[in-house]
Amino acid sequence: MQVDDLSLEDDMTAAELVDALRHVGLQATELARAASAITNMQRDGATTYLTFTSNMVSSGLRGLFAQCIRLGIADVIVTTVGSVEEDIMRAHGESFSIHDFDPDDITLYEQGRNRVGNILIENESYQRFENVVTELLGDVAAEHERITPSALLERLGNELDDDESILAQAARNDVPIFCPAITDGAFGFHLYMVQEDHPEFTVDVVRDFENVLFSSSRDAKKGVIALGGGSSKHHAILASLLNGGMDYAAYLTTSRKYSGSIGGATTDEAKSWGKIRGDSDAATVIGDVSITFPLVMTRVLDTLREEGLV
Amino acid sequence: MQVDDLSLEDDMTAAELVDALRHVGLQATELARAASAITNMQRDGATTYLTFTSNMVSSGLRGLFAQCIRLGIADVIVTTVGSVEEDIMRAHGESFSIHDFDPDDITLYEQGRNRVGNILIENESYQRFENVVTELLGDVAAEHERITPSALLERLGNELDDDESILAQAARNDVPIFCPAITDGAFGFHLYMVQEDHPEFTVDVVRDFENVLFSSSRDAKKGVIALGGGSSKHHAILASLLNGGMDYAAYLTTSRKYSGSIGGATTDEAKSWGKIRGDSDAATVIGDVSITFPLVMTRVLDTLREEGLV
Amino acid sequence: MQVDDLSLEDDMTAAELVDALRHVGLQATELARAASAITNMQRDGATTYLTFTSNMVSSGLRGLFAQCIRLGIADVIVTTVGSVEEDIMRAHGESFSIHDFDPDDITLYEQGRNRVGNILIENESYQRFENVVTELLGDVAAEHERITPSALLERLGNELDDDESILAQAARNDVPIFCPAITDGAFGFHLYMVQEDHPEFTVDVVRDFENVLFSSSRDAKKGVIALGGGSSKHHAILASLLNGGMDYAAYLTTSRKYSGSIGGATTDEAKSWGKIRGDSDAATVIGDVSITFPLVMTRVLDTLREEGLV
Amino acid sequence: MQVDDLSLEDDMTAAELVDALRHVGLQATELARAASAITNMQRDGATTYLTFTSNMVSSGLRGLFAQCIRLGIADVIVTTVGSVEEDIMRAHGESFSIHDFDPDDITLYEQGRNRVGNILIENESYQRFENVVTELLGDVAAEHERITPSALLERLGNELDDDESILAQAARNDVPIFCPAITDGAFGFHLYMVQEDHPEFTVDVVRDFENVLFSSSRDAKKGVIALGGGSSKHHAILASLLNGGMDYAAYLTTSRKYSGSIGGATTDEAKSWGKIRGDSDAATVIGDVSITFPLVMTRVLDTLREEGLV
Repeated sequence: MQVDDLSLEDDMTAAELVDALRHVGLQATELARAASAITNMQRDGATTYLTFTSNMVSSGLRGLFAQCIRLGIADVIVTTVGSVEEDIMRAHGESFSIHDFDPDDITLYEQGRNRVGNILIENESYQRFENVVTELLGDVAAEHERITPSALLERLGNELDDDESILAQAARNDVPIFCPAITDGAFGFHLYMVQEDHPEFTVDVVRDFENVLFSSSRDAKKGVIALGGGSSKHHAILASLLNGGMDYAAYLTTSRKYSGSIGGATTDEAKSWGKIRGDSDAATVIGDVSITFPLVMTRVLDTLREEGLV
Repeated sequence: MQVDDLSLEDDMTAAELVDALRHVGLQATELARAASAITNMQRDGATTYLTFTSNMVSSGLRGLFAQCIRLGIADVIVTTVGSVEEDIMRAHGESFSIHDFDPDDITLYEQGRNRVGNILIENESYQRFENVVTELLGDVAAEHERITPSALLERLGNELDDDESILAQAARNDVPIFCPAITDGAFGFHLYMVQEDHPEFTVDVVRDFENVLFSSSRDAKKGVIALGGGSSKHHAILASLLNGGMDYAAYLTTSRKYSGSIGGATTDEAKSWGKIRGDSDAATVIGDVSITFPLVMTRVLDTLREEGLV
Repeated sequence: MQVDDLSLEDDMTAAELVDALRHVGLQATELARAASAITNMQRDGATTYLTFTSNMVSSGLRGLFAQCIRLGIADVIVTTVGSVEEDIMRAHGESFSIHDFDPDDITLYEQGRNRVGNILIENESYQRFENVVTELLGDVAAEHERITPSALLERLGNELDDDESILAQAARNDVPIFCPAITDGAFGFHLYMVQEDHPEFTVDVVRDFENVLFSSSRDAKKGVIALGGGSSKHHAILASLLNGGMDYAAYLTTSRKYSGSIGGATTDEAKSWGKIRGDSDAATVIGDVSITFPLVMTRVLDTLREEGLV
Repeated sequence: MQVDDLSLEDDMTAAELVDALRHVGLQATELARAASAITNMQRDGATTYLTFTSNMVSSGLRGLFAQCIRLGIADVIVTTVGSVEEDIMRAHGESFSIHDFDPDDITLYEQGRNRVGNILIENESYQRFENVVTELLGDVAAEHERITPSALLERLGNELDDDESILAQAARNDVPIFCPAITDGAFGFHLYMVQEDHPEFTVDVVRDFENVLFSSSRDAKKGVIALGGGSSKHHAILASLLNGGMDYAAYLTTSRKYSGSIGGATTDEAKSWGKIRGDSDAATVIGDVSITFPLVMTRVLDTLREEGLV
C-alpha cells in the first residue's frame, strides 16, 4: 500500500479520518488496521472479549464500554475490580473531575481527593460507595454461601439503573464480566467485612475459570479487543489459548514489548503461544487508549451500522 | 471540569469527537486542550511556528503540513533536512509504501528498500532525487557565493509545482523554512559535491540565526506547534526565548520527560527558561503524531472556518 | 546537590558505581535514591513488601528475589500466578532460554516454544509442570475444603528443595506470598481440574484480604519495593492505604504516568490517596527492572552487610 | 543461551554484574551484548563514533565522555551544540545542580534557574559563558573568514585546561567533534553577534560534511556508540552509510521504534539502509543512558585494561 499525503476535509467525520489514516504510515496505519480487525470480528460473528483497566473507566471511557456492550460488540468483559467500583459509584451519581498530571499531591490528600493520572475521585464518593456495596454484599452473602465473581457482578449489575453503566448493560445483555483479581480494591475490603459476618461466604474464583474457559468454544470464532495490559488482557488471551487461539485481535496499549510485560506483549508474541492464531487478523496500536479507542470505534460503529450489523 | 462518560454518535465528525474527548481524562483531555491552544493562537494572530521531523513527512503528514501553510496556520517552519529531501522526492512523483515494523531488514537492503518505521523508500527514489537536486544546487551555486538555508529552501520551493508540497506552499506563502542541520542528510552530500565544483560556495547557517530570531518580535504574540523533538523543536523555542517566550504552545510527542531529552521536554520545563511564558496557553499530548496531529487539526480547522479565520 | 562529572575507576564495585551515579542527574539520581530508600527501610526495621510480575521471574531475577527473602529484605511478597508457575518449573529443573525480541513467532509456535520478550519457555516444561502441580493440588484438595492463596503457596513452597526458589525461601522464612489473581494462569486451569474432582474445594481469596491487611499494622513502619505494575503493585499499596500508608517506597518501572495506569502511577500520586505518607522516603526509577533492580540491590546489600544488618 | 537465576555476590564489581546480567533476559541481555559490541570494536581497531546529546553532558556523563576520548575509545564525536556550551561552562568552573523532575517552573524562572529534566543551570552561568565565548569567537573571526564547525570546536578545546572537558580531551587527542546543528543554541546567537562585527565570517557546515565522510574509509572497520537520538546519531550513521556501513553498533536510547523517529530507529532498521552491515555485531538497549552507559562501560574498560588495550 502506498503512502497518501493527508489532506483534511471540511466537517470530515471521524470515520472518514480513520479511512484517511490508513494511508498514513507509523501508528496511523495500525489504528486503521485495528478498526478493520474489530469490524471483521463483528462481521464474522466472533465471540468478542473486551478487556480494560480501571483508569479507563475513571476517564469516561465507561460510557463507550457500556455502549459496546449494549450494541453487541462485546460478548465477554474482563477487567479489574477498580472498574467495578468506579462503575457503581458513577451509577449512584458520583462525579469524577479532571485536574492535572503534576499537582501538589499532599494538598490533594488533605482535601480528600485521590488522583488517577489527571482525574480526581473524592473520599466522599468512596464513603457513599461503601454504604451501597456493604448492604448489597450483605444481601448476597445471606443468599449464597459461594458465588463466582461473574455471578456476583451480574447480581450487582441487576441493581443498577443507569444506561451508561457497564455492569447494568452487561447484566441486561447477558454479557459476563470476569474479574480474576476480585479482591484487589476497596471491594476486597468490603468482601472481607461481609465474610466476617458470614464466615461461610466465599467468592469462588476457581469456578469462574471454568466459566471464562467455556465463554467460547474451540470451534467458535473468537476475537479480542485488549485495552492496556494487566490481568484483564492476560486472562482473556489465556482463555483463548486453551480454546484454539483468537482469530481476531486488536491490542491498544502504551506499553512496549522490550521489557516482556503483559501490557507490551504484541500479537506476534501471542502467536508463539497459540493465544492468537498465526493467520489471524491482528493489529497493535501504541498510544493512549483514551484517544485511540474512541477514534477506532467511530469507524467500527459507522461501518457496522451501514451494514445493518448494529 | 467533570468527567463525562463518552458516547459515540452516528456519523460524528472528527471535530465533535475532539469536543467529547475534552471531558474524557488522561491524554484525551490534553488532546482537546492542544486543539484549543492552536485555535487560540490563530484567533490572536500569533506568529505560529510549526516544527516536525522527517519521519512525519515520510508518513504522509506532508500533505497536512502543506495544508497548514496554505491556510495560514503556520507562519514559520523548522524541520530537519530529511523533510526537505522527502518533500522534493514526492513533488517529483516518487512513492513511498507502507510495510511493517518488524520485517527482514537484510532482505529489504538487498531489494534496495530503505525503512523508516513501517515506511519504505526505494533506492531509486534517492537516485532520481540526486539528479534533480544536483542540477538545482549547481544553479544556486552559480548564482550565489553564500546563501542561507532558508533562502536556499525558498529557491527550491519555487521550482516545485505541487500543491501538497511543503516547500512549494512555503515559497508561495512567504513562510520561511529553517533547517539548522541543513547538511544532516543526503542533501549534505549533494551540497558537498557542489562545493567541490564551486569552492567559494557556502551555506550561511549563522545568518539564518538572525532570520529565525527576527521571524517574530518581542512584542508580537507567538505560538508553537512542536511535533516530536530534535533540533526542530529546540530551534523554534530557542528563538522565542530570545524574544520574550511563546504565548501559546502545543507539544505533541512520544517522548517522556524523565530523561531530560528535548523530545520529552514539557511546556512546564520550557517555562523555567522563559521559552514559554508562565501564563501561556499550553498543552502536551503524549502519543504518536500520525494519529494525534490530524485529529487535533480537524477541530482547529472546522472552528477557524466557522469563524471565518481560514 | 551538585552534578559531579563521572569518571569510572578500575575494578569499581557496582555499589561504588551507584554512589557515583547519585551525583549524575536524570534517572541515575533516582536509582541512587531508590537504593537509599530500600536501605533505610531495612535500617528502620520496616515491614517490606516486594512486588514483581512473572516476566521478571522468567528473566532470572527469580534468584535475586529468593536472595532478598533469604536475607530478610522482603517480608511480604505480592506477585502474579505466572511467577508461581515459573518458580516451580525452575525448581523442578526446567530451563528457559534467551532468544530474541523479534523472532518468527509462527516458527516458534510450531517448535513448541513460547515467548516472553526475548525469553523462551518450552511446551514440555509446561507439561511436566502440569504433572507436578496436579498431584500436589490433588493432595491439597484432599486435605482442605477451603484454603487461601497464601496458605496454598506456602504449602507448595514446603515441597520445593531449591535455595533459589522464591516459594521455597518464602516458606522457610515465614514470608507470605499474596497472589490476588491466583487463577490467572495455567495454575488456574489446574485448580479448576482439581475442583472438578473435589467440588467442595475453594480457594478463599477474601480471607487473604484479611491476611494482607494484617501483614503489617498501622503503628509499624512499612516500606514497598514495587517492580513493574499490575495487581502486584496495586495490592501492596492498597494494603498500606488501609494501614496508614508506606513510610518508604521504591518504584522501579518502565511505565510513565501520563496514562493513569498502575504501572506508571508515581509515589506522588500514591500520596494523594494516603498509600504513601507525605513525608516518606520515596523514589521512582524509570527503566527496565532487569537492569535497575540488580544494580540498586548491589548498593543495598553491600551497605547492609557492612552495617551487620544482613 | 540459558537463563541463569541471578545471585548478587559481596562487593561484586560492576563489570562482574554485567557478566551476570548477560544470563538474565529482557534488557539485561541487551546491556551485556552492548558491552561486547563496544569491546569488540576496540579489539578490532575500528574507528569508533560516539554520539550523544546535551542533556547527557549536563547530567555529569561529560566526565565519562572525556574519559572515553582520553582512553582512545572514541575516535570521532558527533553531538549537539548544547553539549559544547555546557562543556565550556563546566571547564570554566560553573556548577549545575540536581533538583526535581516536577518542580514549580514559574518559581525557577523567577530565580533565574533553567531546568533540563532534574538538572538546573543558572542564568549567571550562561552570562559568564557569554563573556568567555564572545571574546573567543571574536578572536576566531579575526583569524578566519571561514571555518568548519569541527575546526572551530578544536580551536575552543585548545583554550580549555580541564582534564574532564570533552572539547579539551578531543583537541589533545586529535578527535574531531562534529556538530551539524552548530547554531542551535546560545552559541548560535553568539556566532550571529560575531558575524555582525565580521560580516565576512562564515561557519562552513558543508565542508564539514567532507570531514565527517573522510573521518573513516570504506575499507576501515567502523563502529558506533549512539546515545539517544537526534542529529548526533543520524549524522554518524549517515556518514557510515556512504562508507560501507558500520561493522559494530551499540544503540542506547529511551525511544522506541514504533513512531519512526531517529531516537527509536533500531540497528535492524539501519541495516535496511546499509548504515549498519547485515553481519555486524550490534545491540540496542532501551533505558536511560545515565544508568546504562556507565554500567556498560565498566565492563568495557575493565576488559580492555586486562587485555592491555587501554
